[in-house]
Amino acid sequence: MKKLINNPELVVEEMLEGIVKAHPNYVKQLEGFNVLVRANAPVKGKVALISGGGSGHEPSHGGFVGKGMLDGAVAGAVFTSPTPDQIFEAIKAVNGGAGVLSIIKNYTGDVMNFEMAAEMAEMEGLEDLEIASVVVDDDVAVENSTWTTGRRGIAGTVFIHKIAGAAAEKGMSLREVKEVAEKVIANVRSMGMSLTPCTVPAAGKPSFTLGENEMEVGLGIHGEPGTHRDEIKTADEITTHLVDKILADIDYSNSEVAVMVNGLGGTPIMELYVINKKVNEILAEKGIKIYKTLVGNYMTSLEMAGASITLLKLDEQLKELLDAAADTPAFTQF
Amino acid sequence: MKKLINNPELVVEEMLEGIVKAHPNYVKQLEGFNVLVRANAPVKGKVALISGGGSGHEPSHGGFVGKGMLDGAVAGAVFTSPTPDQIFEAIKAVNGGAGVLSIIKNYTGDVMNFEMAAEMAEMEGLEDLEIASVVVDDDVAVENSTWTTGRRGIAGTVFIHKIAGAAAEKGMSLREVKEVAEKVIANVRSMGMSLTPCTVPAAGKPSFTLGENEMEVGLGIHGEPGTHRDEIKTADEITTHLVDKILADIDYSNSEVAVMVNGLGGTPIMELYVINKKVNEILAEKGIKIYKTLVGNYMTSLEMAGASITLLKLDEQLKELLDAAADTPAFTQF
Repeated sequence: MKKLINNPELVVEEMLEGIVKAHPNYVKQLEGFNVLVRANAPVKGKVALISGGGSGHEPSHGGFVGKGMLDGAVAGAVFTSPTPDQIFEAIKAVNGGAGVLSIIKNYTGDVMNFEMAAEMAEMEGLEDLEIASVVVDDDVAVENSTWTTGRRGIAGTVFIHKIAGAAAEKGMSLREVKEVAEKVIANVRSMGMSLTPCTVPAAGKPSFTLGENEMEVGLGIHGEPGTHRDEIKTADEITTHLVDKILADIDYSNSEVAVMVNGLGGTPIMELYVINKKVNEILAEKGIKIYKTLVGNYMTSLEMAGASITLLKLDEQLKELLDAAADTPAFTQF
Repeated sequence: MKKLINNPELVVEEMLEGIVKAHPNYVKQLEGFNVLVRANAPVKGKVALISGGGSGHEPSHGGFVGKGMLDGAVAGAVFTSPTPDQIFEAIKAVNGGAGVLSIIKNYTGDVMNFEMAAEMAEMEGLEDLEIASVVVDDDVAVENSTWTTGRRGIAGTVFIHKIAGAAAEKGMSLREVKEVAEKVIANVRSMGMSLTPCTVPAAGKPSFTLGENEMEVGLGIHGEPGTHRDEIKTADEITTHLVDKILADIDYSNSEVAVMVNGLGGTPIMELYVINKKVNEILAEKGIKIYKTLVGNYMTSLEMAGASITLLKLDEQLKELLDAAADTPAFTQF
């Protein structure tokens, strides 16, 4: 296992300390918990947004804690759901009196533990604490998967962070922010592929193997199996396959969309831009207009070499919120 | 070779097209040349900054073209110096009448070709075109190297882009911007290491090999040999070695510094933050104050797994310029 770490058991703790040391104006850690919240949390009178999940997807989710996006991020062990007590602490720490919205990627463990955290809050009888949640299931690849009933939540989640985050910053109510988040979820679709596996530090060896000329198409961000394995094709062929699968799932014709070409952690940025060129060609052919494009590492799988493509259908409200200013450790480009 | 590309011979052209499609409000390509310039170039009355070099270091350099940083970036073939005619075209396209400063990483080919481009401009007798250049040599690892006389220029170059870019945006003259750039160069030091090699697309195989438990310490961003090979150590041990080498080269005591923990392209962001934790501990022990920290992929080597550490000694002027607003495709976090 070739990794720049010290102790596989402490990698999340050490990472979080490194994040706080790098960005003290943005985030602080809750003492005794693997939870990052805004340095000025709680923000009084604003709906607070939390997200999280297993670690290993950086900059998701801690990198997106900041003005215009999340209020808190809960970091589980690598590729492992955070525990309910962690999530509960996050909810309490970000609560500014206007309610807390949890943005959950659709994995059985995540959904269950975020729900349990909400129940814990209810049982404690926290008076002014209104809680809501949304579940993101943007991955069109497969219907059920290793750790998921229904579709998985992958890189499209970052669009929910951004757009719902802008809605909350604008002063919308919890009900309104949740509605905006649900609109994004209804209109966002993703699919990914990979050339290599990745290695969870505590496991010490790759979670699957791929042949020298083989790729996995439609895999999840924890290396869950995809739709099929295939010989490596050209970037254009791979891009065409992924975009076609997305377009077969939802009607984007005559729409304006946001595009995200997301690297899985070990992919040269050069290759992401080669993919983006083809995404543009395909959408232009189909008369789908691109409003905004993001290219980079947003939702990674450790050092996996591969990419996902996300499309989000926009209306005037979503465009405005997508364009709103954000200021987070990872992400100020919107 | 596992890469998301189409044709190894066309990868730079396709990447540039992908960049322009993604960020049309930021950059445009000069027709017939692998050169990106600001969408609104030339900016009248402002000193223009260009940089560039071989491709494969993305987001350097095209990702840093935009307000507050570069005016143009010249993209050579992968790991290959751009040609003088390309650079000459970039100079002409960004010239807004206040002079053009070239920021060159110290590689023999780059230095030679940027110089030849300046001579071409002189021979053409371009009246209002004042040209200057600076050469960045921040890598403390080795004195001479495969393609370099003197020290190599690596990730510290991004600090010159940012700070000199802010100086130019502020309206400083060519002489003043060059002085600022030289001050940064005098105060910035870097050193890197790698766990894996990378593969230049046109070569089709890794440029060197490393054993299962081996790392290369002090290597260059094109895989040039470093100071030594060693068994992989812990992140803390590796970080200590790199920072010690930097601190042995220049006196940072009682200083305030900017820190960059730079990923080489295939390194999980998690690991970069683990490194940053140790950088903080070492500098705190030595009484060196950290003013600002950057963690991410700034100057990459395709899919190489590894990292470099950069320290920059700051004074009040450099702090102000480092903090100034910038807006580029890759980089709006300063």
